[in-house]
Amino acid sequence: MTIRALVFDVFGTLVDWRSGIALEAERILGPGLEGGAFADAWRARYQPSLEPIRTGQRPWADLDILHAESLDEVLAQFGIAGIDGRAKRDLVLAWHRLDAWPEVSDALARLRGRHWLAPLSNAPVRLAVSLARHNGWSFDAVFGGEFSRDYKPKAALYRDAVAAFGFDASQTLMVAAHSGDLAAAASHGLATAHIARPRENGPAGGETVPGVPVTYAATDLADLARQLGC
Amino acid sequence: MTIRALVFDVFGTLVDWRSGIALEAERILGPGLEGGAFADAWRARYQPSLEPIRTGQRPWADLDILHAESLDEVLAQFGIAGIDGRAKRDLVLAWHRLDAWPEVSDALARLRGRHWLAPLSNAPVRLAVSLARHNGWSFDAVFGGEFSRDYKPKAALYRDAVAAFGFDASQTLMVAAHSGDLAAAASHGLATAHIARPRENGPAGGETVPGVPVTYAATDLADLARQLGC
Repeated sequence: MTIRALVFDVFGTLVDWRSGIALEAERILGPGLEGGAFADAWRARYQPSLEPIRTGQRPWADLDILHAESLDEVLAQFGIAGIDGRAKRDLVLAWHRLDAWPEVSDALARLRGRHWLAPLSNAPVRLAVSLARHNGWSFDAVFGGEFSRDYKPKAALYRDAVAAFGFDASQTLMVAAHSGDLAAAASHGLATAHIARPRENGPAGGETVPGVPVTYAATDLADLARQLGC
Repeated sequence: MTIRALVFDVFGTLVDWRSGIALEAERILGPGLEGGAFADAWRARYQPSLEPIRTGQRPWADLDILHAESLDEVLAQFGIAGIDGRAKRDLVLAWHRLDAWPEVSDALARLRGRHWLAPLSNAPVRLAVSLARHNGWSFDAVFGGEFSRDYKPKAALYRDAVAAFGFDASQTLMVAAHSGDLAAAASHGLATAHIARPRENGPAGGETVPGVPVTYAATDLADLARQLGC
């Protein structure tokens, strides 16, 4: 079945969140900080912060709100006090200006000639659009957390994206650097592409090969574009 | 207050639905048909078809479904029988390949350099993306009926679009050729721009000036871009 649309995980798959957050944390909080460790600690609170929403214990709240809450916890964990609201806001917005992995922007432009493209991420619309404009990407729509008012890997996110673009699920390719995301997408009939991101977590590495069966396994997004004939 | 984002009505404001539907109806149903009258009759059933969804009597259904239902009524009204499912589907999809008014594509490209842009239409995502690709437009996101699961002029459509882009409502400009749409947007704090479309309804004309107070009144989208300094 020909792939007609690609939907993308964003953090880790398209952008290097760890390097970006580390640099911004050092800039905003002071050079004494070990930015990489700060970024890791902040990201470690990401999945737990989504869980009360996935289970329905908490109404949907966007990632800026969740990032702001977990930032306070990470600052306390690092023993950093006296950070004013403006600096905290600047840190939360650091997630809006992350740089793409080097090959991503060119590869997306090539893919867009023959496919419909959208982020399918937990990022809210404003964050996804900010990253797109920061990195020069053009998408056809924005799916994900705010579109479906829930968080991956809940079924609604995958199903709503497939329904909205309107191609068969098997013609809709979920692109991610995380096997769990791809397993969830596959369970709803989507085709899947794994992108190796061996440096996503810095010294702790990242997924170099998929841990689940996938339709495509790629070394980076340019490799996926080549495999799709773009 | 500086305008940061523009959100657009689509049918009539960006695309010439009447000419497009008239030509496609004549092509698909045969040259004996008066295409303009057919387009008018189909469009006349548009607002009534939305009403049961706005009032909550019917669950949300996308415009392709509503167009297909009203097409059967219009075919009956015109005494046209024996149209097969494939031809009907082709007619419903004629709404996905409407041409823009002549100045629209250039004006959107100019506006996009300094503003975030999205359709805020009753069109579902697939229809909005099809029109964008058909006419060479790039948007940052797609709002409207499918994003909010309701139909204009219900409050959710305007409020969800403002919240998703995340600018103040007064920095978010609703652009439409229809005063009712602009009045609803203004009631939720959005800035408003009226676009004159004197030929929207063919011989029956269209709105040449706004019937309500607006932030900007423009002769076409290029004029609005000029007024915004683009």
